[in-house]
Amino acid sequence: MSDKPKAIVLLSGGLDSSTVLAIASQHYKCHAISFDYHQRAEIELVAAEAIAVSFSASHQVIRLDDGVMAGSALTDTSIAVPEAAEEGIPVTYVPARNTVFLAHALAIAEVMNSSDIFIGVNAVDYSGYPDCRPEYIEAFENMANLATRASVEGARLRIHAPLINMSKSEIIKTGVELDVNYALTVSCYQADAKARACGVCDSCRLRHEGFVAAGIADPTRYQEGVELG
Amino acid sequence: MSDKPKAIVLLSGGLDSSTVLAIASQHYKCHAISFDYHQRAEIELVAAEAIAVSFSASHQVIRLDDGVMAGSALTDTSIAVPEAAEEGIPVTYVPARNTVFLAHALAIAEVMNSSDIFIGVNAVDYSGYPDCRPEYIEAFENMANLATRASVEGARLRIHAPLINMSKSEIIKTGVELDVNYALTVSCYQADAKARACGVCDSCRLRHEGFVAAGIADPTRYQEGVELG
Repeated sequence: MSDKPKAIVLLSGGLDSSTVLAIASQHYKCHAISFDYHQRAEIELVAAEAIAVSFSASHQVIRLDDGVMAGSALTDTSIAVPEAAEEGIPVTYVPARNTVFLAHALAIAEVMNSSDIFIGVNAVDYSGYPDCRPEYIEAFENMANLATRASVEGARLRIHAPLINMSKSEIIKTGVELDVNYALTVSCYQADAKARACGVCDSCRLRHEGFVAAGIADPTRYQEGVELG
Repeated sequence: MSDKPKAIVLLSGGLDSSTVLAIASQHYKCHAISFDYHQRAEIELVAAEAIAVSFSASHQVIRLDDGVMAGSALTDTSIAVPEAAEEGIPVTYVPARNTVFLAHALAIAEVMNSSDIFIGVNAVDYSGYPDCRPEYIEAFENMANLATRASVEGARLRIHAPLINMSKSEIIKTGVELDVNYALTVSCYQADAKARACGVCDSCRLRHEGFVAAGIADPTRYQEGVELG
């Protein structure tokens, strides 16, 4: 299907972005990009590669320089990952993460002559991150359409956020229909070296509740001794 | 002067950004950031360090992953740097460069509790890059103010572009008043390993014309045999 247009898909290897890759692959030839930002759960990069392969997408891991993605429980092991939902923006928020990720996607899209970027942000069952809100995505798209040579020459870049108004169970049902193998995906903020989930962080909690609500058996591999609520 | 607020300054080591650092240093404690993006003129990073030291600014070089800043004569040695002004957007345009640079600055600003980012874009004597226009800077600022925890908590991030409406000669006059040592700066797109300028690229041309218009002797160190027009 070489006549499909090209799209850049931000792929963390988690449940949401893997579902986005499945959605995008229906109509686009996808180039998936993941980031090595010294995150605790580096194993998610292995998951991302496996998911990309399963959808015949090309895959690029971009290494960010040390200390760029700082000030978060996800990158600083001196800050504990919380085991319950927090009020306000949680300590797992990574400063400007989606802006840095989307900026790289924009650069790669322009070089690859693509006008479509996909991102798995979600404004329903999410962790309260500011850079997951619809108004943020819209503002980035607006900026991107002033930033590039392609935009000056008339191409309209689109940031697609197909999950933005979906609940976690709707996302899971969609992914199952599109043959996403969720056993390959890693959502946990502190997955171990064998890609097994902790079962207690915010991301694990939202994911497990999604499977329960969808009425689909949770295929997640958990660490030993985890008891799900 | 520890009571000055902190600012992040994008510093390439060229004439414009060095002048911006001088302007910002009047009212802010500056943290300068430069990027190693495999540019032809890597020597500009040495110039950036020297300029940062001369204004007592801290300085951080951020290395971008291979292949992120691609598709430009500034990063791809198979594309020649042109020796005359071009129609439209020149081949020295680097896809999404300022977006990637500003995204990093935003992440660092948030971690450092700074609400001020300075960039040396200029819409008068410039090379026609889309991401140097006022409407682009405004759109980035708007996006940034939806992107971060700081913005949700009420801080207003500002992208300062003090040179945006200045001619090259006005920039030079301002810098001379603020004691910028322009002999330290490197503007050339293809400076040699001794930081000597080629004298023929678009950037060299604009720079030299600026010194002539300002009535200030050009302190630029040129490669042997260069004859300036």
